[in-house]
Amino acid sequence: MKISILGTGTVGQTIAAKLISLGHEVMMGTKNAADKLASTNKDGITIFANWHKENNRVKLGTFAEAALFSELIFNATQGANSINALNLSGKENLKGKILIDIGNPLDFSQGMPPCLIPSLSNTNSLGEEIQKTFPDTKVVKTLNTMWCGLMVNPALINNADHTNFICGNDAEAKNTVKSLLNEFGWKNENLLDLGDISCARGTEAILPVWLRIWGATKNGAFNFKIVS
Amino acid sequence: MKISILGTGTVGQTIAAKLISLGHEVMMGTKNAADKLASTNKDGITIFANWHKENNRVKLGTFAEAALFSELIFNATQGANSINALNLSGKENLKGKILIDIGNPLDFSQGMPPCLIPSLSNTNSLGEEIQKTFPDTKVVKTLNTMWCGLMVNPALINNADHTNFICGNDAEAKNTVKSLLNEFGWKNENLLDLGDISCARGTEAILPVWLRIWGATKNGAFNFKIVS
Repeated sequence: MKISILGTGTVGQTIAAKLISLGHEVMMGTKNAADKLASTNKDGITIFANWHKENNRVKLGTFAEAALFSELIFNATQGANSINALNLSGKENLKGKILIDIGNPLDFSQGMPPCLIPSLSNTNSLGEEIQKTFPDTKVVKTLNTMWCGLMVNPALINNADHTNFICGNDAEAKNTVKSLLNEFGWKNENLLDLGDISCARGTEAILPVWLRIWGATKNGAFNFKIVS
Repeated sequence: MKISILGTGTVGQTIAAKLISLGHEVMMGTKNAADKLASTNKDGITIFANWHKENNRVKLGTFAEAALFSELIFNATQGANSINALNLSGKENLKGKILIDIGNPLDFSQGMPPCLIPSLSNTNSLGEEIQKTFPDTKVVKTLNTMWCGLMVNPALINNADHTNFICGNDAEAKNTVKSLLNEFGWKNENLLDLGDISCARGTEAILPVWLRIWGATKNGAFNFKIVS
C-alpha cells in the first residue's frame, strides 16, 4: 500500500527502508526536499542524500505532498516540531486519514538526558495535542517507547517477545495499524492496547526511564516486556 | 535488624508484615498512633487496628519515634505528604541513615488516573526532593514501580523474573538495600541500578503508564521486565 512518512531523520529512514522491503510504496515528507538532499553534517557529508541514493525507491516531497500521497501517515518528526510539520502538511491532506504518531515531546533545553516538554506532558501529551489540533485525523500512538531498530524488527531481541503499546480513539484505525505492526514482526499478544489517545500520557512518560536505562546499560537495543 | 516504616497504609502494612516474617524488628511511624488505631473507614470499621491486631509484633509510634528506632527507614507515605512526614520524623533522627523511598508523587486533584505533582516531576522527582531536603540522609529509590504485593514477593509472577529499578547517590547504601531486596526474593540480575537519585525522575515517571496498563488489563499484579 501507499504509506507516507513525515520526517527524514534516523527513525523516518528506518521505517521507510523497512516499508520498501515489505513491498510498500513510500513517500517521505520534509520542509524542502532540495534543501534536505543538499544538507550536510559538520564534516560536510550529505548524510541524507547518501541514504537516499541507497534507498532510491523512497519518494521525497514536501510535508504536504507526502500527506497527500497516502491514507496512512507516520509522524516521525521531532516531538517539538511535530505540530508545525503537521500544519505544513495541511489539515485537508490529513483529513480522515490514519496518523501513526511515533514522536516524543523531548525537551533538550534543560540539558541531558532531555526532559519532556512541560506543556506536552503529565496532563497532556504529544499524541493528544495532535488529535486535538487535527480532530478529523485518526491518531494512533505506538512504537515511541523503543529504539527505531526494534520498531521495525522486534525479533532482534528476546525472540520478538516484548511489549509494544498502542492507543488511539478509533478502533478500526488501531486495527489497521496492528496489521502493519504484524508485518514488522510484532505478534498480536505483544501489542498492548491501552485505550484512547489520552494513554499517550503514559507511553510518552516512558522516555525519562528509557533514557536512564540506556545511560546505565549503554545499550539501546532493549525493550519493556509486561509480565504477569 | 531494626527497620522503620513511615506510613501505615496498605504499602506500609505489606512491607511491615513481610519484614516481621523475615525476623526483623519493625516500628511503623504515623502522625499520632492513638488516632491511627481509633480511625475508621466509611463503614465504621477500624481497618488499621484490625490489621495491627493480626500483626501485633509491629511496633507503632510517631514518625519521630519510628525514625529514631532504626538505621534503615522506609518512606511508605503518600508522595504528596512525604516531605511533611519526613519533617515530622526530624532531620536529626534521619541523619546518616538509609531512607528507602518507595513513594510516588501522585496528584489526584486533576481526576483519575492521577497525574504527577508538577513540581515533583519531569525536571525534579520526589526522590530528589527528599535528598535535597535531607542532605545527610542516604536516599535510595526502589520498589515504587509496582503493586506492593510484588514488592515483597516477586515470585508471585513470572518466576520472580522481572525488573526492579534502584537509584541513589550512595553506593554502600544501595548495596545494603539490595541485600534486603534479596531477602524479599529479588535476584541480583533483576535489580537494575540506574545511577544517582536524579534517576528517580525516570522511575517515578513509570506511574502514568503503570496506571494505564492496570486500567486496560484490570490486573495490578504485573511488572516490567527489561529484555535485550
